[in-house]
Amino acid sequence: LNIAAIATVAFALTPLAAQTARLSDAQARSEATAAELRERALESNFAYEFLRRLTDFGPRLAGSRGERAAAAWVSQEWRSLGFRNVQSEPFPLLLWQRNEETAEVVSPHPQKLRATALGGSPATPPEGIVGEVAIFKTLDDLSNVPRGSLSGKIAMLDYHMPRTESGQGYNIATAGRSAGPGAAADAGAAAFVMRSAGTDAGRSPHAGLTRYRGSSAPIPAFALSAMDANQIERLAERGPVRLRLWSNASSQPAQSQNVIAEIPGVEHPEQIVVVGAHLDSWDLGTGAVDDAAGVAVITAAAKLISQMPRRPRRTIRLVSFGAEEVSQPADPFGLFGATAYAKTHSSDLHRYVVASESDLGADRIYGLDLPAGAASTAFGQQVQRVMLPLGIIVEAETPPNGGADFLPLQTAGVPIFLLKQDATRYFDLHHTELDTFDEVEKGQLDQNVAAWAALLWLIANGDVDFRETLPRPNQ
Amino acid sequence: LNIAAIATVAFALTPLAAQTARLSDAQARSEATAAELRERALESNFAYEFLRRLTDFGPRLAGSRGERAAAAWVSQEWRSLGFRNVQSEPFPLLLWQRNEETAEVVSPHPQKLRATALGGSPATPPEGIVGEVAIFKTLDDLSNVPRGSLSGKIAMLDYHMPRTESGQGYNIATAGRSAGPGAAADAGAAAFVMRSAGTDAGRSPHAGLTRYRGSSAPIPAFALSAMDANQIERLAERGPVRLRLWSNASSQPAQSQNVIAEIPGVEHPEQIVVVGAHLDSWDLGTGAVDDAAGVAVITAAAKLISQMPRRPRRTIRLVSFGAEEVSQPADPFGLFGATAYAKTHSSDLHRYVVASESDLGADRIYGLDLPAGAASTAFGQQVQRVMLPLGIIVEAETPPNGGADFLPLQTAGVPIFLLKQDATRYFDLHHTELDTFDEVEKGQLDQNVAAWAALLWLIANGDVDFRETLPRPNQ
Repeated sequence: LNIAAIATVAFALTPLAAQTARLSDAQARSEATAAELRERALESNFAYEFLRRLTDFGPRLAGSRGERAAAAWVSQEWRSLGFRNVQSEPFPLLLWQRNEETAEVVSPHPQKLRATALGGSPATPPEGIVGEVAIFKTLDDLSNVPRGSLSGKIAMLDYHMPRTESGQGYNIATAGRSAGPGAAADAGAAAFVMRSAGTDAGRSPHAGLTRYRGSSAPIPAFALSAMDANQIERLAERGPVRLRLWSNASSQPAQSQNVIAEIPGVEHPEQIVVVGAHLDSWDLGTGAVDDAAGVAVITAAAKLISQMPRRPRRTIRLVSFGAEEVSQPADPFGLFGATAYAKTHSSDLHRYVVASESDLGADRIYGLDLPAGAASTAFGQQVQRVMLPLGIIVEAETPPNGGADFLPLQTAGVPIFLLKQDATRYFDLHHTELDTFDEVEKGQLDQNVAAWAALLWLIANGDVDFRETLPRPNQ
Repeated sequence: LNIAAIATVAFALTPLAAQTARLSDAQARSEATAAELRERALESNFAYEFLRRLTDFGPRLAGSRGERAAAAWVSQEWRSLGFRNVQSEPFPLLLWQRNEETAEVVSPHPQKLRATALGGSPATPPEGIVGEVAIFKTLDDLSNVPRGSLSGKIAMLDYHMPRTESGQGYNIATAGRSAGPGAAADAGAAAFVMRSAGTDAGRSPHAGLTRYRGSSAPIPAFALSAMDANQIERLAERGPVRLRLWSNASSQPAQSQNVIAEIPGVEHPEQIVVVGAHLDSWDLGTGAVDDAAGVAVITAAAKLISQMPRRPRRTIRLVSFGAEEVSQPADPFGLFGATAYAKTHSSDLHRYVVASESDLGADRIYGLDLPAGAASTAFGQQVQRVMLPLGIIVEAETPPNGGADFLPLQTAGVPIFLLKQDATRYFDLHHTELDTFDEVEKGQLDQNVAAWAALLWLIANGDVDFRETLPRPNQ
C-alpha cells in the first residue's frame, strides 16, 4: 500500500473539508489535532519496532511462559511510556498444550502429513488412531450422516474457505472447526480431520480451537494443511485412504493476565473509551499479525496521543487481553481474558463511552463502522474527513462487531466501533507457523496506527454519547 | 504462461520459416512432423496426469520404499506405452534417513525452529547439542576463522540466495551447504546451521546434501527456514542466542535402480539419443518439480514420438535415474545412479549422439543450448524455427550443462544439450515440503513436453554428428 499516494489524492477533496467551517473553534482545533496525529503516525517507527520486540518472545500461547514474559514486558513498556494505572490482572485458565503430534497416510502409499491438533483436542491412544477417511464437503453433510455410520472411520471435513476482503468466509470455517469434531463423534468416528480454516494453498496447517458440545465423548481432532488435504482428495479418487493420527496433547491449570493502562481524561476522567487487543497467540508462529499487531497499534496510538500538548477530555483505557484464543468451556463467550475483564470491571460498565479491539492483522484499514446512527451526525462527518486521507470510508448503520474480547461488554450494552481491516492476506497466516514478523508490512501497520490515533483522539476529546444514538429496544 | 498467445505471435514470423524452402524434402517433412509433435503436446493431459500419479507415491527418497514403488510403476507404464527394452538396473547405495529432529532457541526466549538436517549429517548426541550461534554471512567468512575459534559454538551460515531466471545463485548456496559443515568443524564448532539454499521467504526448510571433506570429524548440520534464519538474526542483534539441535539421523545399506527404455531407431538403431530425469526426491515433499516433472516430460515426449506413423531413424533411450539427490562419498561425481549407469553402459558410450536431462522443475523453457557450434548450422536454424512458437531461443556457443546425471557421460566426451527452464519459482520449492503436485502449472509443463518432443524428433530423425561440431582439444 502506498499511503503517500492515497493521501495526495484524498487531500484534494476540498468540498468535504470545507465543512470544517461550520464547527466550533474547539471542534476545529480538535480535528486539526486528529489530522496531526494521523500524519505523525505515518512517520513513526514505533509500532513496527514494538511489534518486532513482542515477536522476539516466540509463541505466546495462553497461559504459557511466552505469554507471561511478553505481558510483563508490555506492562513495563506502558509504564515507561507514561501511561497511568498500569496493572496486570491475573486469572486462572486451563492451559492446553499440543506437545508432540504426527499424522500420516498409511495406505495406499505411506507418506507423512503436515497436520496439527486443534486446541482442546484430547490426545490419541498411545498407539495412535488408524482409520479410513470419509470425506465431507460441508458441516451439514457431516452432521446429517446417521449415528454410528462412521464407526471406526476418520471423518474429514473438506470445506474450502474462500478469500475475501472482509474475512467473512471465516465464520463458516470456524463453525466446522467448532462443531465438526462433535458431529463426527456422534456419527461414531474415531477421529476428525479438517482442511485448515485458511485461505492459503501451502503446507502449514492452521491451529485453532474446537469445542465438544455433542452428546459423545470428545475425539482427537486435527487440521491438515491445504496441500495435504489436496493430496488426500487425490488419493481418495483412486480408492480407500487410511490415515494414522497421533497426539499426546494435554491440559493443566495455569494463569494468564489482562494488562491495563490509562491516559486519564482532563475533563471527564470518569468517561472511558476502552480499546483492546490480545497478547496471546497460537503456538506455531510468533503471533505477529494475531495479535501482536493489535497490541502494537493501540500502544502506538495511545503514545502519540499522550505526547500531544493537551490530553483528551475523556479517559482512554488500553487492555492487552490474555487468553483470547482459548476456550472456557462453561462460559457462554468461551473467552477467558474477556470474561475475566468483564467480571472484574462489571461495576464501571456504565462509564464506557465506546469499546473496540484491533484483532484482524496488520494490513490496512478500509472502513469504519461507528455505532448505529453515529455516521450521519456532525461527529461522523468530522471522522470521515480525518479518515479520508487514509483511504478509510465511514459506513452507516452497519451493526459493528468490535472484536471477540469485547463481546461480553457489547452484550451488556456498551457501544462498539470497528475499524475494518483488509483480511485478504490475513487468513493465509492466521494461526499458522507463518504468522511471524516477516509478514508485517510497515506501511500498512502505520496506516492502522494513524486511523486509531486520530479516531481515538476525536472520540476521547469529544462529547458524543454513543448510547444516545443507539436504537432503543422496542422503539 | 499463455502458450496460445506466444504461438500466435511467433507463427507470424514468416521470414525465418521461409528458410524451409532450402531444405530437402525429407528435412522439410521431418520439420513438419516436429511441429505436429509440438502442437499435440500442447493439447495433451498425459504429462500432467503422469506427474500426478508419480506424486501419489509420496516422497521418493533414494533407496526408500517410495522410490522403489515408483520405479516399478514407471517400468510398468513404459512397457504399457510400447517402449522397448525396458529394464530396471539396480545398484547399491547408502540410504540416509533423517528419522526425527528438533531445533529450538533456548535463549533469550525459548521457541521452536523449523529446521531440517542436511543429507549425510550425523545424528546429534542423544541429549542434543546446545551452543551459542556465531553468524557468518558467506562461506569465505566462515572458512577464514582461526582453527578452534568456534569451540563449543554453533556456526551459522547466513547466505541469502538471490532469485534468478537461470537459477545461477544456487551454486554459491550449494557450495556453502557442501563445504560449510566441514569448515565449521575445522574451526571447532559443535554443529552447523545454515539459512536454507532457497529463494522463498517462508517457514519450510530446504533439505539437501552436505559433504564432509575437511580434516575434522563430521558435525551435525541443519538448514533453517528463511523465517527462522530471520528470527535468529533479529534476536542476535540484541545479544547472544543459544540453540538446541537434536537429530537421530541414520544410514543403512539399501538399493536403488535406474530404469531404462528405448524407442529403437528404424535406420540407425545403434546411434543413441539419451535423455534422462531422476526419479528420487527429497523426503519432505513429494518431489513433484524435483524431479517427477522431468520423468513425466521425457515420458510424454517419447510417447508422442512413438505414436507417429514412422519411428525416428536413431534410437531414443530414456533413463529414469535413481539416487540423484544423494552422495557416494568415494566417487568424484557423488551421484550413485549416474555413476552406476555410466559404469554399466561404459562399452557403448561411443554410440551416444547426444545426452540431456530434464531436472529444473516444471516451469517453461526459455532457451536451448545446443552442443558448441551446432546452433549456427542449418540444423540449428531448423531447431530454432520449430522452437520459436514456444518462446524458446536457441543460443550459440554456450557450453551446455546437461544435468547432474549425465556428468559422467559429459566428462567422457558425450555431447550435451540443455533446454533451459525458468528457475524463478523453482528454488522456492526445491527440496522442501512445498514441492508437491499443487505447485505444477499444466500449461508450463506441457510447453516442456512440446519442446522435448519436437527437439528429440529432430535430433533422432536427423543425421547431425554433434561430436564433429565440438571444438577439438588443442586445435
